[in-house]
Amino acid sequence: MNSLEQLTKSLSRLPGIGPKTATRLSYYLINSPKSYNQDLGEQISSIQDKIFKCSICGSFTETEPCDICSDPTKDKTLLCIVEQPQDVVTIQSSGVYNGLFHVLGGALNPLEGIGPRDLSFGKLKQRIEKGNFKELIIATNPTDEGDTTAAFIYSLFKSQENLSITRLASGLPVGGDLEYADRLTLTRSLNGRIKF
Amino acid sequence: MNSLEQLTKSLSRLPGIGPKTATRLSYYLINSPKSYNQDLGEQISSIQDKIFKCSICGSFTETEPCDICSDPTKDKTLLCIVEQPQDVVTIQSSGVYNGLFHVLGGALNPLEGIGPRDLSFGKLKQRIEKGNFKELIIATNPTDEGDTTAAFIYSLFKSQENLSITRLASGLPVGGDLEYADRLTLTRSLNGRIKF
Repeated sequence: MNSLEQLTKSLSRLPGIGPKTATRLSYYLINSPKSYNQDLGEQISSIQDKIFKCSICGSFTETEPCDICSDPTKDKTLLCIVEQPQDVVTIQSSGVYNGLFHVLGGALNPLEGIGPRDLSFGKLKQRIEKGNFKELIIATNPTDEGDTTAAFIYSLFKSQENLSITRLASGLPVGGDLEYADRLTLTRSLNGRIKF
Repeated sequence: MNSLEQLTKSLSRLPGIGPKTATRLSYYLINSPKSYNQDLGEQISSIQDKIFKCSICGSFTETEPCDICSDPTKDKTLLCIVEQPQDVVTIQSSGVYNGLFHVLGGALNPLEGIGPRDLSFGKLKQRIEKGNFKELIIATNPTDEGDTTAAFIYSLFKSQENLSITRLASGLPVGGDLEYADRLTLTRSLNGRIKF
């Protein structure tokens, strides 16, 4: 196997990159500026040395604790619970949330053998006991696993006084079309309807 | 900008990779085996040092001349003319062609200022004068630019005796459906119809 085939093979291991796309990327890389290839190569080789998980919230960071956990302007009474580190970035980039985060590291999935011990519920309990939270916003995905996880979190903390537990609204995506909405989304959208 | 954002930015410069896909790839790379990242990083950084263009046919190679030009089993009376080095790989992988190749390095495109001098027609003339070719197979893309280039190649060599000039058939893709064929493809398919 020559260098080009090796590169193509490595690229085709990336998610969503099939053999054809990998070939196209390889040819692009042969023709791209050399400095770009060196930067990208270096960044890929070293990313795991630079990025680790924040010991408090579990999101990816280059500093300990992470930028969000150490930000004094954050509202420390709000805790948003997400499945994955990338969900923190997604919610942050919306710009409408100014509280703290907790990353579970996945969702409960009995079929795949992912139980409560595999996710960071222990740390979550500790944070809620020691902290001064007034609201838990459950932002797990609107999937079966996310729903199960949300229900489990609710069962853990429902008895706590002065702690309100909410979940992200599920419904029609903005800019979407009723015609193309699936039945489940429509059902949730109807059940969760709000006063005009 | 932190390491993760830098990596995502670099990845999103690749063709067909938007910001969302780049983010997904970045997170995949954080969680993938370290040896994979190091291999891929090294391959991307070094690909341009290892691969260059064959001085005879213009396709990408790690040896001079390339594997195809130096292969004694190839039929040296057949020359397939393509636009890009990747087209050589595509035709080779079909397994039905056993001749030599010539890579033009693109197609004529007056609107973008790509004229005959920008492509390797000079080298093509030399090869045909010195060589012993009996057939030129024009395999430029079935696009306006590819058609123009094919017509130009024909005009260059049509007066040569004992040299037959052919072009790849254009028509319905195998496994395709008449219903979804565009008008131009259908027209070409009809004009180029063959006896059953």
